[in-house]
Amino acid sequence: MEQLQVRAVVTDGCKVAKEPRITSPRGFRAAGLHAGIKRKRKDLGMIVCEVPASAAAVYTMNAFQAAPLKVTREGLEVEGRMQAMIVNSGNANACTGRRGLDDARRMRQETARQLKIPEHLVGVVSTGVIGEPLPMDRMLRAIPGLVEQLAPEGQDSFCRSILTTDTFTKASEVRLTVQGKEVRVAGAAKGSGMVHPNMATMLAFINTDAAVEPPVLQRILRKVTDQTFNMITVDGDCSTNDMVTAMASGLAGNEPLTEDHPDWPAFCRAFAHVARDLARQIARDGEGATRLVEVTVTGAETEEGARRAAKAIVGSSLVKTAVFGADPNWGRIVCALGYSGAIFDPDRVEVYIGSICAVRDGRPVPMDEAAGRRELEQDPVRLRVNLNRGAAQATAWGCDLTYDYVRINASYRT
Amino acid sequence: MEQLQVRAVVTDGCKVAKEPRITSPRGFRAAGLHAGIKRKRKDLGMIVCEVPASAAAVYTMNAFQAAPLKVTREGLEVEGRMQAMIVNSGNANACTGRRGLDDARRMRQETARQLKIPEHLVGVVSTGVIGEPLPMDRMLRAIPGLVEQLAPEGQDSFCRSILTTDTFTKASEVRLTVQGKEVRVAGAAKGSGMVHPNMATMLAFINTDAAVEPPVLQRILRKVTDQTFNMITVDGDCSTNDMVTAMASGLAGNEPLTEDHPDWPAFCRAFAHVARDLARQIARDGEGATRLVEVTVTGAETEEGARRAAKAIVGSSLVKTAVFGADPNWGRIVCALGYSGAIFDPDRVEVYIGSICAVRDGRPVPMDEAAGRRELEQDPVRLRVNLNRGAAQATAWGCDLTYDYVRINASYRT
Repeated sequence: MEQLQVRAVVTDGCKVAKEPRITSPRGFRAAGLHAGIKRKRKDLGMIVCEVPASAAAVYTMNAFQAAPLKVTREGLEVEGRMQAMIVNSGNANACTGRRGLDDARRMRQETARQLKIPEHLVGVVSTGVIGEPLPMDRMLRAIPGLVEQLAPEGQDSFCRSILTTDTFTKASEVRLTVQGKEVRVAGAAKGSGMVHPNMATMLAFINTDAAVEPPVLQRILRKVTDQTFNMITVDGDCSTNDMVTAMASGLAGNEPLTEDHPDWPAFCRAFAHVARDLARQIARDGEGATRLVEVTVTGAETEEGARRAAKAIVGSSLVKTAVFGADPNWGRIVCALGYSGAIFDPDRVEVYIGSICAVRDGRPVPMDEAAGRRELEQDPVRLRVNLNRGAAQATAWGCDLTYDYVRINASYRT
Repeated sequence: MEQLQVRAVVTDGCKVAKEPRITSPRGFRAAGLHAGIKRKRKDLGMIVCEVPASAAAVYTMNAFQAAPLKVTREGLEVEGRMQAMIVNSGNANACTGRRGLDDARRMRQETARQLKIPEHLVGVVSTGVIGEPLPMDRMLRAIPGLVEQLAPEGQDSFCRSILTTDTFTKASEVRLTVQGKEVRVAGAAKGSGMVHPNMATMLAFINTDAAVEPPVLQRILRKVTDQTFNMITVDGDCSTNDMVTAMASGLAGNEPLTEDHPDWPAFCRAFAHVARDLARQIARDGEGATRLVEVTVTGAETEEGARRAAKAIVGSSLVKTAVFGADPNWGRIVCALGYSGAIFDPDRVEVYIGSICAVRDGRPVPMDEAAGRRELEQDPVRLRVNLNRGAAQATAWGCDLTYDYVRINASYRT
C-alpha cells in the first residue's frame, strides 16, 4: 500500500510527513468528486475504513446545530464506532427543519447501502450555505461513483471536496512508534469563515491506525480540541455545522492505548501535533488573510485565563487590522488583553511583537518602529504577552483582517 | 441666554431639539480649541457649570483603565459633584504609568486654578493613542485660553475638540416639563473605533439643569447606559478610556427628582432619549460605516438573554459584511443568534430583515431576494428577531463592516 518513502522531519517526538495523507493510517481510503451542489468544484467526499473504527466527535456549541451533526451523533451513540464519513460542501443542511434531518438520514442510508455496512457506522457532515435544502437527487446519484473511486490515493480529491472559501487544502500527518510498531495519525480539515473558538468553527477529520477504545479516543479528542481547534479564530463567528471527528482503525496492531499505556504521552503528542497543524492551517487560510497570527500568553494564573487573553488578542479587529497594516500598535494588544476577562496586574504586563519588547511593567518600551513593522510583515506573526503572575500559558491562532475579508463576505452568495 | 427658538419634535413625551447644544441646560458653558496634541484639528475641550453640579459617571470595564478615569473617579468620590470637565483627544493617557497619573492630576490642577474652583470638582477625560505621554507643556499653556473662550455658544467647538476618527460631531437635546418648569437634558459624544458593549467604548457627556441628587443621578446613568451605550458595538473592542458622565446643575428650579417624584418617568424618558440618540450616532459613525444597523430581539425569556442575542447579531462580522454587501443572508443572523448564549427554541425563531419575514419556526420563508436587498440598502437597516418564548426584549446598534474600516485601522498611526 505504501510505495513512496515518506519524507519526514522529527517534531514533538514524532516524524512529521512532508506529504501528509488522510489515507496513510492503515485501513483508510478516501474519494471526492463533483456531485452538482456547487457549480463546478468538487463537493462530495468520503472517508472509509476497512473495519469499524473506534470513533469520537466534538460538535459546534451553536444552538442551531445542523441536521448532519444530529445524525452523526445518533450513530456514534450506538457503539462508539464509525466506518465511513460522507461529507458535502456547498450546502450546510442547517435550518432546514424536518426535511434537513430526513435528507441527512438519506445520505447516510445510501452510503451504508453502497458500502454494505450498518447505517449507524456512517457519519454525515455538511458545510456551506445555511437554510437551503440539499439537492438530494444529484447527491444520491453521485454516491455509487464516489464509493467506486475510494482509494488510498483519494487524499487530494477528498481534501478538495470539503472546501468552501478555502484557498488551499489542509492536511497533516505524523508517525510514531508504539510498542515497536509504527502508528500513523493523519488529518484533513477545511476553514475558513465563521471560524471561532468553541468548537464549531470548521471541519476536521483525524484518522489513525492505532488501537484506541472509543471512550479514550473521545477524551483525547476533547482535550486536544480545546488546545487547538478551539484556540483559532478568523472572524468571531461560530458556525452551525462545525465538527471534528476521529477514527482509529486499530490496524497498527498495538495493544489498545489508554492513559496508562507507556506510549500514551507519545501518542498524545502525535495526535496534538496533527490537530495543531490543521488548526494553524485553518487560521492561516482565514478568509482574506495574508498572514497567520500566533498569540502566546504566558505567566497566567490559570490556563483558562491564558486562553481568554490569547483569544481576545488574536480575535481583536483592531489587532488584526494593525497586523494587516504592519503597524506595531501595541496599545491594541494591551487593550484586548484588558477586556479579555483574564486576571492580571496591569503593571506587570510584558508584550513582545516578534522578538521586540514593546511593553514592560505595563508601560511602553522605546521601540524601533521600523523593526516592529518588519516583525509584523513576517508570516507567521508572533505576539507574546507575559502576565508575570503564574505558570499557566496558552496559544491562540488567527489571521489579519483585510480588504479581501470584506470583499469575500460582502458578496458571498451574489 | 436663549435667543433662538428651538425647533423641536415631540418624541418619548418630550420635545427633541433640532439643533442640540450641550450648553442648553441652564448653567453650562463650553469651549474647544487646538492645543497641539493633534497636528491641526481641535484637541482640547471644556464644559463648565456655574455651580457645583450633581454628577455621576460610568467607566470602562477594561483592566487597563486609563489615568484620567482614576483621577475623575477620585474627585467624584469626594462629594458626588463636578463643576468642570477637561477633555483632550489625540492621546489617551493610557498605559502611561505614574507619569500618566501625574499628568492627569496636573490637567485637573491647572483647570481648577484657572476656574478658581476646588480640584475635586474637575473631571479629566482623554481619548486617542495609547501609551504616549501627553504633551503637557502645550496643554497647560492652552488651558487659560480655553477658559477664556467658555461660552453658551461653545457647543460646536467643544464637540469638535473631543473627536478622533469620528466623521461628524454628536449631540442630542430634549426638553420636558417638571412641575411646570422647563427642564433640559443635552449631551455630546464621540466614537468611533474600539466601540463595544461594556461601557468602555466611547465618551459621552450629558448635562441637565434638572435638580437631581448625585446618588439618584448615578442610578439613572447606570441604568440608561446599560440600555444604550452598552448596546452599541462597532468592532468588538472595548477601550481603556471610555466614560460617560452626567452633570445636573439644578438651575431649572424643580424640587429634586427621585424615583418617587411624579415627573420621574418623564425625566427618565428624556434622559434615555438623549443617551439613545447619542449611542445611535456613535454606531452610525462607526469607523468606515455606511449604514446604522439596529437589531431588536423580542420574545426573550430574560432581558439579559435579549441583550446577548441582539449584541451577538449586531457584532457579527459576517452580518456586518452582509449588510455592507446588501446580501439578505439571514443564515448569518441565525448563526450569530445560535452562539449568543441566549436561551431559546430554534424551532420557534422568527427573523425579519426590515419588513420582510425571512425565517419562521426556525426555517426559511421563501423570500424575494431583491426586496431583501432593498431593505439592507436602507439607513438605518432594521433587523428583528422574535424568539417567541417570553416577554423580554432589547435593541442593539452597530454598523456595517466595510473596506474603509480596514483602511482606517490598517493605517491609524502611519
